Formats: sequence, C-alpha cells, structure tokens
Amino acid sequence: MRRIAALPLIALALIGAKADDGTATAAKLRDAALEKNVAWELVESLTTEVGPRLAGTPKEAQARAWGAAKLKALGFQNVRIETYDMPTWVRGEEEAWVLGEHSQPLAVTALGRSGATPAAGIEAEIVHFANVEALEAAPAGSLTGKIAFVTHAMARTQDGSSYGYFGVVRRSAPSIAATKGAVATLIRSMGTDMHRNPHTGGTNWAAGQTPIPAGALSLPDSDQLERLLKRGKPVRLKLVMTPRFIGNQQSGNVVGEIVGREAPDEVVIIGGHLDSWDLGTGAIDDGAGIAITTAAAKVIMDGKQRPRRTIRVVMWGAEEVGLLGAAAYAKANSGDKIVAAAESDFGAGKVWKFGYRVAEGAKPLMATIAKVLAPLGISHDTANTNRGGPDVQPLATLGVPTLAPEQDGSDYFDLHHTPDDTLDKIDPKALDQNVATYVAMTWLVANSDVQLGPVAAGPAR
Amino acid sequence: MRRIAALPLIALALIGAKADDGTATAAKLRDAALEKNVAWELVESLTTEVGPRLAGTPKEAQARAWGAAKLKALGFQNVRIETYDMPTWVRGEEEAWVLGEHSQPLAVTALGRSGATPAAGIEAEIVHFANVEALEAAPAGSLTGKIAFVTHAMARTQDGSSYGYFGVVRRSAPSIAATKGAVATLIRSMGTDMHRNPHTGGTNWAAGQTPIPAGALSLPDSDQLERLLKRGKPVRLKLVMTPRFIGNQQSGNVVGEIVGREAPDEVVIIGGHLDSWDLGTGAIDDGAGIAITTAAAKVIMDGKQRPRRTIRVVMWGAEEVGLLGAAAYAKANSGDKIVAAAESDFGAGKVWKFGYRVAEGAKPLMATIAKVLAPLGISHDTANTNRGGPDVQPLATLGVPTLAPEQDGSDYFDLHHTPDDTLDKIDPKALDQNVATYVAMTWLVANSDVQLGPVAAGPAR
Ligand SMILES: [Zn+2]
Ligand SMILES: [Zn+2]
Ligand SMILES: [Zn+2]
Ligand SMILES: [Zn+2]
Repeated sequence: MRRIAALPLIALALIGAKADDGTATAAKLRDAALEKNVAWELVESLTTEVGPRLAGTPKEAQARAWGAAKLKALGFQNVRIETYDMPTWVRGEEEAWVLGEHSQPLAVTALGRSGATPAAGIEAEIVHFANVEALEAAPAGSLTGKIAFVTHAMARTQDGSSYGYFGVVRRSAPSIAATKGAVATLIRSMGTDMHRNPHTGGTNWAAGQTPIPAGALSLPDSDQLERLLKRGKPVRLKLVMTPRFIGNQQSGNVVGEIVGREAPDEVVIIGGHLDSWDLGTGAIDDGAGIAITTAAAKVIMDGKQRPRRTIRVVMWGAEEVGLLGAAAYAKANSGDKIVAAAESDFGAGKVWKFGYRVAEGAKPLMATIAKVLAPLGISHDTANTNRGGPDVQPLATLGVPTLAPEQDGSDYFDLHHTPDDTLDKIDPKALDQNVATYVAMTWLVANSDVQLGPVAAGPAR
Repeated sequence: MRRIAALPLIALALIGAKADDGTATAAKLRDAALEKNVAWELVESLTTEVGPRLAGTPKEAQARAWGAAKLKALGFQNVRIETYDMPTWVRGEEEAWVLGEHSQPLAVTALGRSGATPAAGIEAEIVHFANVEALEAAPAGSLTGKIAFVTHAMARTQDGSSYGYFGVVRRSAPSIAATKGAVATLIRSMGTDMHRNPHTGGTNWAAGQTPIPAGALSLPDSDQLERLLKRGKPVRLKLVMTPRFIGNQQSGNVVGEIVGREAPDEVVIIGGHLDSWDLGTGAIDDGAGIAITTAAAKVIMDGKQRPRRTIRVVMWGAEEVGLLGAAAYAKANSGDKIVAAAESDFGAGKVWKFGYRVAEGAKPLMATIAKVLAPLGISHDTANTNRGGPDVQPLATLGVPTLAPEQDGSDYFDLHHTPDDTLDKIDPKALDQNVATYVAMTWLVANSDVQLGPVAAGPAR
C-alpha cells in the first residue's frame, strides 16, 4: 500500500526534474544577484538626488524623469511615462501646543487629505477615545467644538497585519469625528517607534464631507497627552494645520521592459511605487521596492538568455494618496496579457516567506520557485491567497495572478511615513537578498510556458 | 615574610569591621530603595506637568516651583530657592532647504546662543570640513559669504568620552567659522542616533564676537549633505534661523535638606539640574538626575536613623547654558563645610562604576562604599581622579571632594538634547538601581566622621 501511494509523489518529482534547466539558471541568476546588483546605487540615487516626492508635485515629476532616465541607461526597452491627472494635496504649517498650566509643544503632522485650521489656529478641548468603536459610540453632536483624540493598540508584527487591523483609526476616525461635530481629530500615529516623528498617511472622507483638520501625534506625544488627561482636568490644545488642496496635477507611471524572446506579448510585471510621503526621502517606502525590482530585472537582462516572456518593470505613481497610479495603470493596460504581477512595497527587510495567488495548474511552478528561494531562508506559504502589494490590487481585482515575496516588516512601522524613512535605514545585505528573490522568481515565471491564471476576479480585499 | 607583610591588611580589615554598623544600615537602605522609591513618580511628574524648561524662561521658573513643592511635600527641611539673574536665549523659527536640482528640506535646529538670520533667511553655498582642525586651517576670509559645514567622527561609548573629545565641533566650530567670514555654520549633530531629530546644545563665542547663525543637522541629514557634495557640484542652502537673546532673566537653584543629627553644619551635597533644553521634556537630561538624588535622600529620610551629617539636595538651574546655576551656587555657598558633592547628570542608565576624588585618608571609606555597591553590579574605579558631574565642577575647583557613580551612557547620545528626550526612554529598573547607589553612597558618607578632603583646588578641567 505504501509503495503504491508513493507513486504520485515520484511522478511529481519527475515533473520537477523536467523543469531543471530553468531551475539551474534561476539559481545561477539568484547567486549572481547576491554578488552584484545595482539596487543600492538606485535607492541611493533616488533618495539623495530627488528626495521626498509627494504625488502630484514637481518632485514626483522629477522622480519620473529620474526613473525613465535610469531605465534607459540600464538598457531597458520601451521605456515610457504613462501620465494621468490627479487631485493634489500639499502640507502646510503644523503645530500643536498644550495650553494652560502644563503648556508644552507636541510633535504633530497632518494626515494626507486633512482639512486646514485658520492660519492662526484653533483652540479646543480634547476628548479621548481608546479606539474607533468608542468614537462611533459617541452621541451625535457630542464633539461639537472639541478635538477628538483617538488612540489604539497597534503592535509590532512581522507581517504588518497589525497595521491593517488598527489602521482604521487613521483611515476613518477623522471622518467619523467630523460627523459628530469635532473641529479637528488627532490620532496616535500608526507606528511602533518611540521617536518624536509622527507618522503621516492618507485619511478618507465620506462623499461630500468637508475635511476637518486631521493630524497624528508621535507615540511619545500621544502618551504625554494621555498622562495629562489622567490628571483629571480638561486639556486644551492649540492646533495650527494649514495643508491645501491645489487642484488637479499631472502624475504618471514609469515603465520599462525586457522584451521576451518567444512570447513577447505575455507580460510579467514587477515594480514598486515612485511617489513617497513628503516627510522622509522615501527610502523604505518605496525607494527600496523600485530599486529591488529594477535591479532584479537588470540581473536577468545581463544573464546569458533572454526570458521567453516579457518582463515589465512598473514604477507606479501616486500610491500613497490612494493607489491612483495603480488604478490608471490597470485601466490603461487591461488589454495586455499580464501573466502575473508582483510589487515590492514593504520596506527593505529580508524576504522570509513566498506567497502567491495562482491557478491550480501553476502550483508545481510555485513549488519550483519556492525550492530555488529556500537557500535564501525563505519558506513557502502554500495558502494560495496572497494578493501581493498595494499597486497590483487593481490588477488582482481584474483576475491577474499575483506573486508575493513577503518581507520581514518587524521594524517597518518604526519608520513608515515619518521623517526617519531615509537611506541609512536600509541594510544593503537584506536589499540584495530581496533582489535575489525577485530574480529567481521572475526568471522562472518569465521563462516558463505555464499559465498562472485564471484566478477569480473580484472586489478589492 | 609573608605573614608580616600581611599584617597591615589585617589591620585594614579590622578598620573595615569597625565600620560594619554603617555598612549593614547602608545595605538595608540600598535594598529598600530597590523595593520602593519615588524616583519614577518624580520624573513622571516633572516631564509631564512642566515638560521642557529652558533656562531663564517661565518654564524653568515653573520647574523651580515644582521642585520646592515636591521637596516640602516629601518632608525635606530648609527648602529654599536661591535666585540669580542670567542672560537668556530663546529659540525661533528654524528651517534648512537644499536649493537647486536636488531641492529638499533638511532637519536642523539652532545651537544655544546661535545668532539669527533675517526672517526671510539666507542663501549660500556650503563648504565642508571633516573636523575642527580642517576648519582652523582654512585661510582667513576664505569662508566669506559661505556656510561652514563641519562634521566629525563621534562614536558610541559607555563613558561618554567621545562626546568630550569631539564636542569641540559644537562648542567652537561656529566661532572659528565666523572669524573666517562664514555667514552661518552647520555641524553634524553631536549624537549617535540615526533619527531626524538634530541635537542642540550650547556653542561659545569669543569675547566681543557677534554670533552668526549656528545649527546642527540630524545625522541622516548631515550624511545626505555629504552625499550631495560627492556629486561634485556646489551645494547651496537656504537657512532660516531666528533665535533671540531676551536679556537678563531670573533663574535659580532649589535646595532641601535632611539636617544631620551630630554634625548638621557638615553638608553632603547630591543633586541634578532642573533646567532642560527646549526640544524634549528633559527626562534623561536631567529629570532623571533630579529624581534619582531626591528619591535617594527620601529613602534615607524614611530610614530608622537620621545621618550624622546634613544631606542637601540641590536642583541646579541653568546648567545647559553654561553652568550658571552651579557657578552662582558655589559663589553663594563657599562658606559652607561641604564634605563632598555628587551630581547625577548622565541619563538613567545603570551605574556600572564608582569613582571619586578624595583625600588619601578617605580611601578606606571609598572601599567600604564600593563593597556595598558591588551587589548592584558596580565596579570600583580606584583612580581617585573623578571630578563628578558638571554642576559640581565649580565646587571641585574650590577643592570640594567629589563622588561619582558612573552611569552607562551607551545610548545617552541617541537622545541627548533632542526632542526624543522623553519619559518613555527611562527604564524604571535602571532608575531604581541608580537610587539604590546614591542611597548607599550618600548614607555612608553622611553617617561617617571621616573627612573626605582636602583635595587640591585648581582650574576647571
Ligand atoms: Zn508604500
Ligand atoms: Zn506608504
Ligand atoms: Zn545635563
Ligand atoms: Zn544637557
């Protein structure tokens, strides 16, 4: 019985053996990437020469010019910028101050799409809510003339899941508070560090709602406010926050290709997003993703053999402000035969797990990829439910298969969307491990004739 | 021969045995401090309720009122505020921006006593110097119209010696640059962290010299500027920095005592400094020192026996801006019989070594103290050259013996003089170990009849 049961496994092993040529080349390319790739040069150049590059601003346009020039210089084909227009928000002054006997400044930053105070600021009492549920339970009108102060219990996690779960505070609390009459909302930053650098990030308003000032306090400042509230007396703040909406501006996605040798119309997409928040230089979010994926394609380009399929590097624009580049990309390119898509947008920590979302028939190919990644310390997530990074979501929603090297994000939210997102936070060795991962994975998919789809189309998760 | 040589050691051991009563009480008090003391409550209260407290400002006055109230509430005797007037400097706007194709903001803060730019700022090219020697070698007039940018190689050290050695950059570079025509000076922060919080701290001007704007860049920003310079083209900055001198203001030292039972006129001084820089809430510099020494005296006060000598807690004012409180204190109290003085002003890290500077005859007492401190993981520095914390320097210069529990400052310069100097950086267990150290040391000296002096008077080190 045991012998007979083992037969199918042997058959599978033979199928694996049939793919050995691709595997050997993938392993060679993987090791070449660990030896030498241009990822560090790219992220050093982008963060130093361009620096912060808020979506819709001239700095993002500068980043596009940078991206197109780099792709051309590296030898990519069909380099182009695909533009679109987008509503644009820019930061102004921002200052918060405790009034009265415990007067002191607080470190604050506006959330993306925040409304503005008058230039002279506002003064109001704060009302504390431990979470969004407590805020939702506040009676209508109960916050009239007050500043809602909403905290949460986000924790350090390897996979970033705590951000998804608690992120509702940043995304929704300001809108909810506005419906209850609040004149402003301050949240505890969605972050895990104890430095006085608040974490920005987009917040959402209901259709037709007038944005109120919405800011984040650093964690030490949020804790300080909670300690002051524990004294039992009302705490009043002065808040100055003067961001502006500057109307529609041009943004765009930057694209470059290695055209496939046998199936040039079948496209494997890898990329990152080119825009960043304005506080840091966008090193881990997402200069690293741009660098990792571009460098990986370059390593493949410099290999002995061109891949069967086309590899397309996409540098999406306007991710931070609502996946605007990704939406424009999916719309403009929905006629393409996109075999699979992967985005690197979770920092520069080592890849620790390989996930994906593909058709059943592509599982052996996934197992082959996992085997080539294993020497990099990467385990295999066989759940087949990973929809990948943010900018591939509009594609995934159309039914495009996704590939998802998962990075260790244990310290990602120490830096995410803060002034501290700078080049020095990237470990070159971990960056190279990411490149090697993308090289092996991308090569094996691009050089294969296995179809990774169809997968179910469906609503965004 | 060996037996005879050993005799004096036995004699010493007997002397040690004679002090056993004091030692046993010291050990009991030490262990009581580890069980329960008020240090955390004190530093929590000072940093939360008062917060930043720049010397000469109303916030420092608020801190004095806080100090006197706490000392009275804790049961100290002879609580008083000893005032003096001092020239006062306050921060204004501060902003730095790279101009031209690599335009981006830089994180900057003014050094204490910095001059000001016009409100609209200045624009000038930067000239890099790797250290003060290189700056000194620049020809006269060579910096006319330029911004001097001075870096250094300060490193993480347990004893803080790297700060003393490289600190010349902060203390002297702006003055030197001004003599060569510079319109401003920017230094790499005297710090060891890679966060975008620049480190402030006082800088010095020659007599009669007109201060020029003098700021510090965070380490990531300093590195960014160096990377931009490596591109080989001139780098121009815009700098806005508008601090002001607001004339003479009142400052003061806060004092409280436990009056000695047998020799009340013999005084053992312990303390910290009450003022802080304005960027953080002064938790590790020097709320911790205030809390440690006050809590230590309180533990002794709550013990069964009052000490022979008077224990005096001093909360010095205006340390950060040039030891002004300490100078006023030494001048006003030079007639006192000060047995010894100790200041805690190096954060809240664990004490790892016990040093001092005393007369030969007091060495056995020092050995006894070291023995009682050993269970806390503290070694014995027998060099007998340690002049202690900054605010006891004017006393040491008059010949007052100094006691110096040395704290582990490995991460002190990650936080020192930055917005990040906040309560969350203090480890309560390490804080308690400090209190236990001060309790044992202070008790043994205050309950002894051994004279610790005279030591040589002499110039400041
Ligand atoms: Zn991102
Ligand atoms: Zn982001
Ligand atoms: Zn200090
Ligand atoms: Zn200091």
